Amino acid sequence: MLKYQQIASEIQQDIEKDDLPQGTKLPVLETFMSKYKTSKSTVIKALSLLERKGLVYQVRGSGIFVRRRNRKGYISFSNQGFSDELSEFDITAKVMELDIRKPPEDVAFNLKIHPKEDVYYVRRIRYINGQTLCLEESYYNKSIVTYLNTEIATGSIFDYISNALGVKIGFSDLYFHIQKLNQEEAQQLQLKKGDPKLFVETIFYLNNGVPFDFSKVTYNYQQSQFFFQSTGHSL
Amino acid sequence: MLKYQQIASEIQQDIEKDDLPQGTKLPVLETFMSKYKTSKSTVIKALSLLERKGLVYQVRGSGIFVRRRNRKGYISFSNQGFSDELSEFDITAKVMELDIRKPPEDVAFNLKIHPKEDVYYVRRIRYINGQTLCLEESYYNKSIVTYLNTEIATGSIFDYISNALGVKIGFSDLYFHIQKLNQEEAQQLQLKKGDPKLFVETIFYLNNGVPFDFSKVTYNYQQSQFFFQSTGHSL
Repeated sequence: MLKYQQIASEIQQDIEKDDLPQGTKLPVLETFMSKYKTSKSTVIKALSLLERKGLVYQVRGSGIFVRRRNRKGYISFSNQGFSDELSEFDITAKVMELDIRKPPEDVAFNLKIHPKEDVYYVRRIRYINGQTLCLEESYYNKSIVTYLNTEIATGSIFDYISNALGVKIGFSDLYFHIQKLNQEEAQQLQLKKGDPKLFVETIFYLNNGVPFDFSKVTYNYQQSQFFFQSTGHSL
Repeated sequence: MLKYQQIASEIQQDIEKDDLPQGTKLPVLETFMSKYKTSKSTVIKALSLLERKGLVYQVRGSGIFVRRRNRKGYISFSNQGFSDELSEFDITAKVMELDIRKPPEDVAFNLKIHPKEDVYYVRRIRYINGQTLCLEESYYNKSIVTYLNTEIATGSIFDYISNALGVKIGFSDLYFHIQKLNQEEAQQLQLKKGDPKLFVETIFYLNNGVPFDFSKVTYNYQQSQFFFQSTGHSL
């Protein structure tokens, strides 16, 4: 973790620990510079990262302020791969399938790999507070995610690949729509055929722009309350 | 529009006009500085804005690259209030109700106003390529959005308030879940009772952090294909 990321992480923890409400003004740059014994540019980079994450917003000539979601029980939609975002929930997973295979055409396309290259395929049912949350199929480029097993996949795969494999996760593209459950999905989610579903396809990229994970997730509509914070409307 | 916003807008137009694919490397900062006759810091601000908008990504020590969604026909989820994002679609609106009233409790809470202050209430059905897209109820803080009428609400309300009223739109918080349509919603959307719906509540803020619009939108699942690009996974 780079210095500015470390500082951003500590500022974030302080905001959460002190439970600062929306609109609270943060200290001036100089205060952070002396607290973290670092340069102005590093503090600015840390705060920009928090702005991109939707945790603070900046008002020209007036300062930097806390930005917070105001509803409990909603899951962050943009960070769905990250277990720390789900820490207020009890999330578990049951691994249904895990193997090395050749990717289907759409997977190879989205991962920008040749159909003859290997991927790790993982199919899981995830649970939130004991209820079915979603069905998940994920394809990992095996030349990046070099090893996976069932024990790892029972926990957070993203924690593992960033902490144990040192993979630097960058950004993601999400595509989603609403449909009706088919018989098989309904059975696995303990719902009825024809019930609503949220279907999300996500391409996750490394911080150098290389896609490493393509996932297809079908959410239980009864457990799916999402929020996200958009930035950059200002253009 | 500030200089860096103008430059960001021109770079965005160039990317779109030339249809540059994902991963295309942009020119170095110096090229932009001489093209737009501006300082390094202004170019960096312009590119940071494009990064927040999900249009480019930065690779340390290597440059700035084009980031593009790769699916046609998907609506941007994070910029749903903005007609320019929908320019590839034919979007129209029918205004069902428009009046000045006192806000319900949840609206006053989300707009951070007193229940005795006035809001503009607008209820519309929006259409995409001639099909029902969504039912929309919006509440605008009347001390910020000082005037609205049916003719304006037939078009893009956001274009009007940013261009005609000069309101500076900042960011937004979205909360959404999946449910089933009730009889009345189904009728208005020309669907069946019990069909899936995507229900989205959004708080839109000015760039100084003051909320000015709280909206509740029920989407037709058959017309609702969304994408969004997340940034800032790098913490």
